[in-house]
Amino acid sequence: MRLDVVSLAPEAFAPLLGLGVIGRAFAAGIAGLHTHNPRDFATDKYRKVDDEPYGGGAGMVLKPEPVFAAVEAIPVLLRRRVLLMSPQGKPLQQSNLRRWASGYDQLVLICGHYEGFDERIRSLADEEVSIGDFVLTGGELPAAVIINGVVRLLPGTVGTQACLEEESHSALLLEHPHYTRPANFRELEVPAVLRSGDHGAIARWRFEQQQQRTAERRPDLFGRWQAQQQLQQ
Amino acid sequence: MRLDVVSLAPEAFAPLLGLGVIGRAFAAGIAGLHTHNPRDFATDKYRKVDDEPYGGGAGMVLKPEPVFAAVEAIPVLLRRRVLLMSPQGKPLQQSNLRRWASGYDQLVLICGHYEGFDERIRSLADEEVSIGDFVLTGGELPAAVIINGVVRLLPGTVGTQACLEEESHSALLLEHPHYTRPANFRELEVPAVLRSGDHGAIARWRFEQQQQRTAERRPDLFGRWQAQQQLQQ
Repeated sequence: MRLDVVSLAPEAFAPLLGLGVIGRAFAAGIAGLHTHNPRDFATDKYRKVDDEPYGGGAGMVLKPEPVFAAVEAIPVLLRRRVLLMSPQGKPLQQSNLRRWASGYDQLVLICGHYEGFDERIRSLADEEVSIGDFVLTGGELPAAVIINGVVRLLPGTVGTQACLEEESHSALLLEHPHYTRPANFRELEVPAVLRSGDHGAIARWRFEQQQQRTAERRPDLFGRWQAQQQLQQ
Repeated sequence: MRLDVVSLAPEAFAPLLGLGVIGRAFAAGIAGLHTHNPRDFATDKYRKVDDEPYGGGAGMVLKPEPVFAAVEAIPVLLRRRVLLMSPQGKPLQQSNLRRWASGYDQLVLICGHYEGFDERIRSLADEEVSIGDFVLTGGELPAAVIINGVVRLLPGTVGTQACLEEESHSALLLEHPHYTRPANFRELEVPAVLRSGDHGAIARWRFEQQQQRTAERRPDLFGRWQAQQQLQQ
């Protein structure tokens, strides 16, 4: 998959390329990352990318021309989706990551500016995406989150396709607890069932833990899971 | 504010220190970032930080000893909060960021492992935090999101305290559109009211746009805003 990021801070994406399983996926050519800085497309001699807001107010607004020019200089693959990072976008869900990972050959991610961007920039995007109801200084971390979450789902990045499918089926339940050695750490013991060798009992315990934990911590997800179960019966 | 991150990939946090307003806040000493790698606290000769799961299953599990040792080597300030990055945590809200920014001198952020961490590690944390219902390969991006969102709120990082207060009052409404020059860009025109010089009319238009946009894009937030308005009357 081809990933194009339009950002005033392309250095923000360096760790994605170098670290962990995502870094290895880029190194293996499973995905390719290309950054594009609107500043390189500014036409005045000061390379100005922002300007004062019409109507007054604090802060500078990202100008439309350099962003349009940056986006229009990007090669266009057949199945491409343009995403605008925006606090006004739809809150990100795992289903979006799955849709983008499986449905497109190219994602273009446009990062906003910490103080605001010109409204006309919206017309470049197929979708606007927010990662949640909290305020950050720019769109770079949200874009990095999306790239991490999408590249993770591409075939060959992590584990097997079977793992990813299992994950998607139980997506509404939180994970069960994990334990590794030592069996006793500071009086905190690994539950006996996990050391029993009884695979049926282990599977039942883990499934019960998933349900219990989800009911306690995320009653909203648990309610949706219960509704889904009833539909399937 | 002192920020301590416990992570197997401390390089992931370099862009925070170098870029934009958050980088400038670190350079100005408004916040200090310290990273701690559990691998440096592994006691065996292979510096092993993960091991196979009890009860079987795919993937490796982050071991408790090196994480406990890393956390316990961190100096303890009086008002400190330990946050564990976990998909099972409470979904992050702006109110959490405000609480951490104003209530503590030190945040310790423990990053999980992409395949799972030993359940006993949870006992180190005061709170578990998730940034949303989507799957990433590790806790590094969520921790970077929290650091960005918290440092942004510290006095001196961005704009004025008045800006931040205004933002918090209207937190349930999305922002109004922003425009800057040119007035006409590819037939897309800046609304006449913003160029009228009539500050009352501009303020009314912006507030109407906020309400209309929130009602259209985020009926959930708009409903909460309406309920809040009724309470205040």
